[in-house]
Order: sequence, then C-alpha cells, then structure tokens
Amino acid sequence: MARRLPVPISLAEIVGRFGGTLDVGDPAATISGVAPLPAAGPLDLAFLAHARFRDQASATRAGVVVVSPVLAAALPAGVPRILADNPYAYYAGFARWFEIASAPPGGGGIHPQAIVAADAVLGEGVTIGPGCVIEEGAHIDAGATLGAGVFIGAGSQIGANTRLAPRVTVMHDCRIGRDGLVHSGTVIGSDGFGFAREGERWTKIPQLGRVLIGDQVEIGAQCAIDRGALEDTEIGDGCKLDNLIQVAHNVRIGANCALAGCVGIAGSAVIGRRCMIGGGTGIAGHLEICDDVTIFAYSLVTRSIRVPGSYSGSFPLMDSKEWEKAAVIVRRLADMRDRVRRLEKRFGDDAS
Amino acid sequence: MARRLPVPISLAEIVGRFGGTLDVGDPAATISGVAPLPAAGPLDLAFLAHARFRDQASATRAGVVVVSPVLAAALPAGVPRILADNPYAYYAGFARWFEIASAPPGGGGIHPQAIVAADAVLGEGVTIGPGCVIEEGAHIDAGATLGAGVFIGAGSQIGANTRLAPRVTVMHDCRIGRDGLVHSGTVIGSDGFGFAREGERWTKIPQLGRVLIGDQVEIGAQCAIDRGALEDTEIGDGCKLDNLIQVAHNVRIGANCALAGCVGIAGSAVIGRRCMIGGGTGIAGHLEICDDVTIFAYSLVTRSIRVPGSYSGSFPLMDSKEWEKAAVIVRRLADMRDRVRRLEKRFGDDAS
Amino acid sequence: MARRLPVPISLAEIVGRFGGTLDVGDPAATISGVAPLPAAGPLDLAFLAHARFRDQASATRAGVVVVSPVLAAALPAGVPRILADNPYAYYAGFARWFEIASAPPGGGGIHPQAIVAADAVLGEGVTIGPGCVIEEGAHIDAGATLGAGVFIGAGSQIGANTRLAPRVTVMHDCRIGRDGLVHSGTVIGSDGFGFAREGERWTKIPQLGRVLIGDQVEIGAQCAIDRGALEDTEIGDGCKLDNLIQVAHNVRIGANCALAGCVGIAGSAVIGRRCMIGGGTGIAGHLEICDDVTIFAYSLVTRSIRVPGSYSGSFPLMDSKEWEKAAVIVRRLADMRDRVRRLEKRFGDDAS
Repeated sequence: MARRLPVPISLAEIVGRFGGTLDVGDPAATISGVAPLPAAGPLDLAFLAHARFRDQASATRAGVVVVSPVLAAALPAGVPRILADNPYAYYAGFARWFEIASAPPGGGGIHPQAIVAADAVLGEGVTIGPGCVIEEGAHIDAGATLGAGVFIGAGSQIGANTRLAPRVTVMHDCRIGRDGLVHSGTVIGSDGFGFAREGERWTKIPQLGRVLIGDQVEIGAQCAIDRGALEDTEIGDGCKLDNLIQVAHNVRIGANCALAGCVGIAGSAVIGRRCMIGGGTGIAGHLEICDDVTIFAYSLVTRSIRVPGSYSGSFPLMDSKEWEKAAVIVRRLADMRDRVRRLEKRFGDDAS
Repeated sequence: MARRLPVPISLAEIVGRFGGTLDVGDPAATISGVAPLPAAGPLDLAFLAHARFRDQASATRAGVVVVSPVLAAALPAGVPRILADNPYAYYAGFARWFEIASAPPGGGGIHPQAIVAADAVLGEGVTIGPGCVIEEGAHIDAGATLGAGVFIGAGSQIGANTRLAPRVTVMHDCRIGRDGLVHSGTVIGSDGFGFAREGERWTKIPQLGRVLIGDQVEIGAQCAIDRGALEDTEIGDGCKLDNLIQVAHNVRIGANCALAGCVGIAGSAVIGRRCMIGGGTGIAGHLEICDDVTIFAYSLVTRSIRVPGSYSGSFPLMDSKEWEKAAVIVRRLADMRDRVRRLEKRFGDDAS
Repeated sequence: MARRLPVPISLAEIVGRFGGTLDVGDPAATISGVAPLPAAGPLDLAFLAHARFRDQASATRAGVVVVSPVLAAALPAGVPRILADNPYAYYAGFARWFEIASAPPGGGGIHPQAIVAADAVLGEGVTIGPGCVIEEGAHIDAGATLGAGVFIGAGSQIGANTRLAPRVTVMHDCRIGRDGLVHSGTVIGSDGFGFAREGERWTKIPQLGRVLIGDQVEIGAQCAIDRGALEDTEIGDGCKLDNLIQVAHNVRIGANCALAGCVGIAGSAVIGRRCMIGGGTGIAGHLEICDDVTIFAYSLVTRSIRVPGSYSGSFPLMDSKEWEKAAVIVRRLADMRDRVRRLEKRFGDDAS
C-alpha cells in the first residue's frame, strides 16, 4: 500500500504552507495521501497539469485537485480544488514535504549490527544501518544516512546529509559530497579497466586514483563508477545519473549533467556542464564534449564534440523484413555511391 | 562439481515417474546425475533432441539417453535409452524434479543473524537467510525463501513460495507476487529518474509510487526496477526478465513478456502482452507497444508500435575498413538522394 | 586523500629496486606517493611517457619524474629524474609495488561476523570479511581474500590468492581459478535465461550447469555471469572483463580476451582467444567468433566470424536534424537502390 500521512493535513493547511487558492472545497477537510487522478480517492491530493489528462479529471474522486485556472473547468463541479499557476511545480513541492512527513520514523543512530572501525569519524546525527561496514579512517559527515549493508572503504568520506540506499559499495579513499543520494547496489571506486598487453597476456596497471563526487549528486541503482588510474574520476556538483551507468576511470563530468539509464562512458572522456545524455548511449574514451550538448538515446560518440547542440546516432526501427533489405544495402553503400557517380559521369554531371 | 542425487534413481523409476519407454537397458540400473551427451558418464542421464547432435550421440557413454524413436538409431547399440516423443520436454520435466531432489537440505526457518522488524508478518515455512534485513510492516508470505543478505523495505510484500537470491534489494511498499524468482543483486523499487529543470539545476521530484510485480515472474541478476513517480511501475504475471535490465518509473509490462539481457525501458512506456524484446534493445519513454510484438536485439524503439509483428533496428556488422566507408556515406545519404533525384529529373523520370 | 607509503622510499632505493638511472636528484631524497605530472608535489613520483604531455612536464613540481632520455629535456632543469627506456612500464611496475606497500594492514583471518559452514574448507592465510556467508562444501583456497558481505554458495571453489571485492555473489557449484580479482557487486552463477514456451506461458528449464572461470581472470563491477543450462559457462585463463557485462548461459570465452564495459553475450556463443570486444557491443547466441577478432564499440554480432580482424557496426553520430533526414532515407534505402537500377537500365548499364 502506498504511504499515508500519520496525521492528515487539512486543505487550509495545504494552502497555508504551499500557496494557491482553495477555490472549491471545505478548508477543514483533510487528505492523507497523494495519487494520480484516476486512482485518487477522497483522502488523496491529485493534480491536473496538462490538457491531455482532461478526461481523467472529468471522473476523478480526489479529495482535492491542484489545477491551473484555465483547466479548472475540466473537473466535476463539486470536486475540491486548489488553483495554482504551475500545478506540477506545486505538486513537486507538496510531494517533497509529503515524502518526509509520511516516512516511518527512522531509528537513527548506529545499528548494533553495524561494524565501524575505531578510528572512523562519524558526524552528528548520522544513521548507520544494520550490516554496514565502515573501514578505518572513513568520515561519515553530519546527518548522513547509510542503509543496511552499505560498505565504506578505508579513508572514504560521505558528505553531510547524503543518503546511501541499502547495499551501496564505496571503495577506499573516495569522496561523495553533501546532500547526495546513491541508490541500491551501486559501486563507487571499483578498479578502472587498465591493462598493458605483454605478448598474449594482459598485465594489470594498478588503479591508484580516486572517485570524487560533488554536492547534490544523485546516482541511480546498479551503477559502476571506477576509480582513476592515477588521476581521479570526477563527477561535478548537481549531476543526476540514472540506473546501470558505467563511468570508467579518469572520466570527468561537469556540473549539472543528466545521464539516462544504461549510459556507458569510456576512460578519460571529459564531459562539459549541463549535458544531457540519452539512455543507452556510449561515449568513447579520450575525447571531449563541450558544455550544453544533448545526445539522444542509443548513440555512440566516437569523436570530440565542440559545438553545443543536439546529436543523434541510432539506427531507425523497421519491420524486420524491410530491415533485412536495408541492412544488405547499408553493407553495399559504397557500391551504390560508385554507381551514382558513374551515372553522373555519363551525363557529364560531376557535382560529386 | 555438478550436483548428484543423494539417492540414485533407477531407469524403471524414471519411466514410472516421467513416462516414455525403456527400449534398451536394465530397469534396475541407476543414474544420479544429468549431463550433456559428450560429458555424460554411466551415472548420468542425457538427451538427444536434434539431428545436429547426432555426432555427439554416436560416442556417448551416458547411463541412459532420452531420445525420440526417429533419432534412436544414432546411439551406439548397447546404450540404454528411453524413447519419448519430445525428448527436450521430457528432459525439462526430469530436470525440474532433479534440481529439487539434488539440492542440499535447506536449513529453513529464520537465521539468527537475520534482522526482522517486530511487526513484520512472516508466513508459514518461510526461509530467511543470514544477514537479511526485513523492515517494519513487511509481509513475507508462506513458503517464501530469502537468500543471504536480502533487504525488504518497510511495508513490502513477497508472495507465497517466491524465492529471492542472495543480496536482492526490495525497497519500501513494493509487492512481488507468488511463485516468483529474483536473482542476485537485483534492485526493486529504487527511485525513478524524475527531475525538473530550474535554471542550471535539477530539482528532484519525489518518487511516491510503487513497484507491483505479478505472479510467476522471474527477474534476472543485476536488474534495476524503479518505483513509479506517482502511479506504479507494473510487471504482469508470467513475465521473464533476463539480467542487467532497466525498467524505469511508471512502465507497465503486460503478462507473459520475455525480455533478454541488457534491455532498457524508459519512463511510462507501456508494453503489451506476450512481447519478446531482444537483448540490449532500448524502448523510449511515453509510448505504447501492442500485444505480440517481437523486437530484435540492439534496436531502439522511438515510436509506438500498433501492429503485432517483428521489428529490427541494428546497424549491420562489417569489416572495419568497409564500415568506415559506409559510415561516411550514411552521413551523406541526403546528398546521395538528391543526386539520384537530379539524375531522374534529367531523364524526365520523376517517380520520386 | 590518495594513499601514501607509511615509510617513504628514497630515490636510490627506487633505482635499486626498479632499475633506470638517477640522472638528476639527491639519491637520499624520498617520496611517499604517486601522482600525475600536474598534481605531483615534492613527495610524489610522476612519469612522462608521451610527448603530448610535454607541457605538463615543463611546470611539474614532482619529487622525481620517470622519463625516457629523449623526453628528459622537457623537464625543468632541477627536477629529479630517473631515465628509463619505457617510462610507462617502469611506472606500472612501481605502481604494483606501491599499491601493496601503501595499503593499510589487512586484518586477515576470519572475521567473527562471517558465517562459515562447518564443512567448508578454508586454505591457509585466507581472509574472510565481516558479513560473508560461505555455504556447505565450499573451498576457499590458500591466500584468497573475500571482502565484506561476499556470498559463496554450496560447493563453490575460490582459487588461491584470488580476491573478491565486497558484496560479490558466487552461487553454488561454481569455480574461480587462482590469482583472480572480482569487483564489487558482480554475480557469478545466476540462472541462465532458459524457458520453453507453452501456449501463452513460459516454463522454466532448470539451469543445472556451472560457471568455470580460469586463472588470472579479472571481472569488473556489477557483471552477471550465468551458470550453464546443462553444459558449463566457461571463461578462459587471463581474460579481463570490465563492468556491467552480461555473460549468458553456456557461453565459452577463450584465454586472454578483453571485454570492455556493458558488453552483452547471448547464450551458447563461443569466443576464441585474444579477442577484444569494444564497450556496449552485443554478441548474439549460438555463434562462433574465431581467435584474434577485434570488435568495435556498440556493434552487434549476429553471425559467426571466421576470419581474424577488425569489425564494426555502429551508426555514425550526426547533428540531430541531419540524423532525422538520414534516418528517413535509411528506411527507404531499398527504394533508392531500385531507382538507381532503373536509371542504369535506361542507360543500358546493368552492372548491378
């Protein structure tokens, strides 16, 4: 069951706290949950932010709907409503409050079944879950929260108020800034992929760098962020990474980038600020991408990008039979180009 | 070493239990293992299901071979054999029995080094491994098995007889149906990737939905299934997901779909029933795929698919030198099209 | 902070141990760390291996720089230097020593909060971290090191001196050779993806094979290596796998292959020796790749490769607007080919 507030909140309190105008509805009525329009019941707040959800609104049973004045007419006459210019932003603010207010009381403190090295430094108000292992010399700054089974290697630092979900691994000598969030399963500080070929064999190059992560960074579940070979791997302030992302050694990502799921970044790539990388996209190693570049999903970047803008590189989807024909022709494109050139020559048209 | 039955089974018992005819062989002879034809010894059951493995059959030393009447002649004269119309289905049934019969006796019960909240509800016959953490209000239904180090967040429910391999994470308020299986490392209920841009920065939208997984669902290792933003992320009954799959927030997958490894599904995509998604394929967000769609490996779906059938979209593999030429031409395809048009115009052929 | 030697090493000792000539510098001077040229201070060793880093060298403050005779002039006059023919190889050797010499003293032994089955066999000098679970009949050979929270299933074997990072899972009956290294989060021996379709539904085929991994194998973070269906999944000696790699059931990889991050290999693929697979590349099932094949990043291999060499298959990256045009034309390539043919026919040129 989705969460509810332990103490319901009245519509008057909502407007008092988050603004807007209670246009229809009893100020003393209360809600205790949030829900999408079609699922919302009399105890739920919902919101209508786009005209395309008008149909959902027309039948809603929500306890109160946040809506813009222009869309308010889409609601049934008696449905309580809060008028707000940007209902989605209003909802986001309410939801941030709701998430905390509806959470079960955290135990806080250091669980007796956590293992904390004698010389680890724990700030005030940290929460260390059961099964956590914190090695020697690690710093867990004030207000940080480590879920069950988190591993913090020797000498690593977790910034103030940063939360690590259960079963996150941070290897030795890495640093995560403050107000961050790392989701379950993610590994930070694993060895970079560094080998030198000697005859048939691969000899390991020790990976002596670190991972340095800025403030307000969110990293999704199941990511792998490798430590640098000798320099450090760096992720700038405010970056947001989705799930299952690979960041190789020595990569540097500028502030406020957003990377969608399953992105892979090869070693020593440097990415500017405010870049947006679509899901499944690959970025080859030892190249640079300037600020403000957007790359669409499932593309491969093999050269530096020096001009801000949008880039794409995925094969279009087709019916499989047509794809088979197209694939054959793609393989023979050089032949087709030569044939077009020959035709042009016969015509005396050598624009080519 | 591969597993063996603690008590061998006779050929007569096999036929009694699983059917078929013991055409050659001593009914009292016993086997204790299963193996592929080339590796099988006198204590192993093997099977021959395709003519292309005839050569392997001709030299087998298996204790008994399950074979169709039409392929039986491929076996050496003296080799014991069970005749069955569909040897692979016969093997599958035997293997399901064998897997359970050869497993070491499970300890069962709740390991003393598991941490179970006082108000968690545990059904009859559940197994909770060492290092598990089960938070307040969670339900573990009858016969469910949690491997070592599994985390079950507050209020989540694990259905009857469902098995979670070691080190699975299920965040709060999620639900997995009955008779399911989730492999090691997988994370269910991590936050969806939801941010609103405010100037240079990204502001987090709380992810208040859940993950709801149906019955008889199998999820591979290292997957990440995000909770919904406000609606729920849903995976239908009977779905099978391979390893390293990303399912973003609000995705809905219909019953009995099969998703191969490394698939990524972006937010709010809706997938019908009985779809088969090839390995590494990406599905963009906010689109719909109808029932009975097959998508080949390494494709990217960017628009809704409304017609059942097979779809593909990967670049063909080439010798790297030829690929370099083809890639240059792909970049200039618009130019080639224009040149063909010009030629046609000169001819007065404007079919284009 | 990056690691330092607890006891600094003098330049004389470095040359004595690793060779080269101390051309400039006090033999009694000491260093305690390593760093890249721009970051190195008077207590750090750095190296200059390529002319393109000449600029970094010209301002370095390193305590000593390893450099080839030909590049030595790029350093400021007074900077201590060790002349060596191959500075990168020299650095690699020094770094291997440094990594061990700078590590905090490992506790060694079996942590009291590890859970080890009574009949598990532990070799001399093994290290078993807190929260590890080692099931019945497992073998941990001499000198092996298991980080915190590692799971070793019943009957599995970890070879001598092999190191498993925290939170690695090895399911039952698998084998990892000696001198190996597996990074955090990786799962070895999860079930292969084996189902038979029965009407609408998928019936599970038990996965009874194992995973067999050779000696000197390194596997990155967050990989998933599935056990075989009936045969075994095999990874040969000396292979190096990066992060987030999927290896499906029955795959066989020959010795000394290198696989970059996010590679996916489907079931029963057979890969030769010394192959190099670029990041994000997919390999379809039931095919063979011969020895000494290199496949570039983000390609999909759908047929067997029988000739050593380099192969590629990714769509080139373009400006998004140009990509939109190109994608439309790719979808209609068959049409363009037909038009070229028609033009050729009119000319009487039927080279096609």
